[in-house]
Amino acid sequence: MKVNLLYSGGKDSSLAAWMLRRLGYEVKLITVSFGYADFAHYARESALALGFEHEIKKLSQEVLSQACELIAGDGFPRRGLHQLHLAALEALARESEAIADGTRRDDRVPMPTLSEVQSIEQRYGVTYLAPLRGFGKRSIKNLTSRIFNIEYAPSEASKSADYEKEVRAYLKDKGYDVNKIFPSHVQSRVIGYKGENDE
Amino acid sequence: MKVNLLYSGGKDSSLAAWMLRRLGYEVKLITVSFGYADFAHYARESALALGFEHEIKKLSQEVLSQACELIAGDGFPRRGLHQLHLAALEALARESEAIADGTRRDDRVPMPTLSEVQSIEQRYGVTYLAPLRGFGKRSIKNLTSRIFNIEYAPSEASKSADYEKEVRAYLKDKGYDVNKIFPSHVQSRVIGYKGENDE
Repeated sequence: MKVNLLYSGGKDSSLAAWMLRRLGYEVKLITVSFGYADFAHYARESALALGFEHEIKKLSQEVLSQACELIAGDGFPRRGLHQLHLAALEALARESEAIADGTRRDDRVPMPTLSEVQSIEQRYGVTYLAPLRGFGKRSIKNLTSRIFNIEYAPSEASKSADYEKEVRAYLKDKGYDVNKIFPSHVQSRVIGYKGENDE
Repeated sequence: MKVNLLYSGGKDSSLAAWMLRRLGYEVKLITVSFGYADFAHYARESALALGFEHEIKKLSQEVLSQACELIAGDGFPRRGLHQLHLAALEALARESEAIADGTRRDDRVPMPTLSEVQSIEQRYGVTYLAPLRGFGKRSIKNLTSRIFNIEYAPSEASKSADYEKEVRAYLKDKGYDVNKIFPSHVQSRVIGYKGENDE
């Protein structure tokens, strides 16, 4: 079965892609861009290094600006990032048989809830897969460090295509202090496999 | 990494086992029995047919009788089955590096909650894996029917080693009308692989 997976180039979405392929799915990686700042090419480099087909999907800048208003109003990013993730899943759902993401059990950013997921499945006649949902932080760290070569960097400087990157760029240009809104954290970027047989 | 997986012989726990092996885990299947009625040998047959190491683990009949009292009092099985599942996970956690089960996204019987899972992980220093949590009913049906040969039978007659079997036997002997307590449903039993290369 063909599945389109939302991809940032980070370790979680890379592991989700690797897992689905191991389980027999035909996986294509999709990176969403809102056309405000170009980070999607970093994800493309990671996707190609891992031997996956990759596509950059443009979403309306309106979606980004609405989420950014929410984030600026809240003073923290949770709800806005959740909204962007749902918008990205819906955009994929319109043109896919199955969609997937790298959300995991212990994620801090709110994951799509069961009812949100079932609503997308029913409205678009699509299947949603979240292969990391049954795995905790430690298991994912063990798997990713065994399989991938990974670069780590503070999120403001990282070469990842997480939604956070475009949100940061947008809010910064609007004059917000993004380091107050986003807690300081480290972002991962997968740059290849560790072993020859990992693919 | 070695992982002990709670196994009933049904399609969900069989798929969980198959997935974890595909992902590189060294999987051993464990069937829990409360020593009241012998259904665990059915699970053993399935486990061996799939090429997994298998063990039957005896739990105290006290655990079964307490869950059965809860179920008889409630008039429906949800809370009691949940309690049995947690007791089984804890018993495994005492002697494992990692434990797993076949609970899935759309399960009707209550799954271990995130806080129950994290509590077990912390108290026993163990990792808990639930590889089907990110997969819906339809995806699991697609995967299992592609990979396994499966027998279906009404739960009262099925050759499975689900907790429900011993609970039914216990409550029936106590004079309860088990067909009123348990909704009529079909249970699956995996009897082998479809293709030669599925293992």
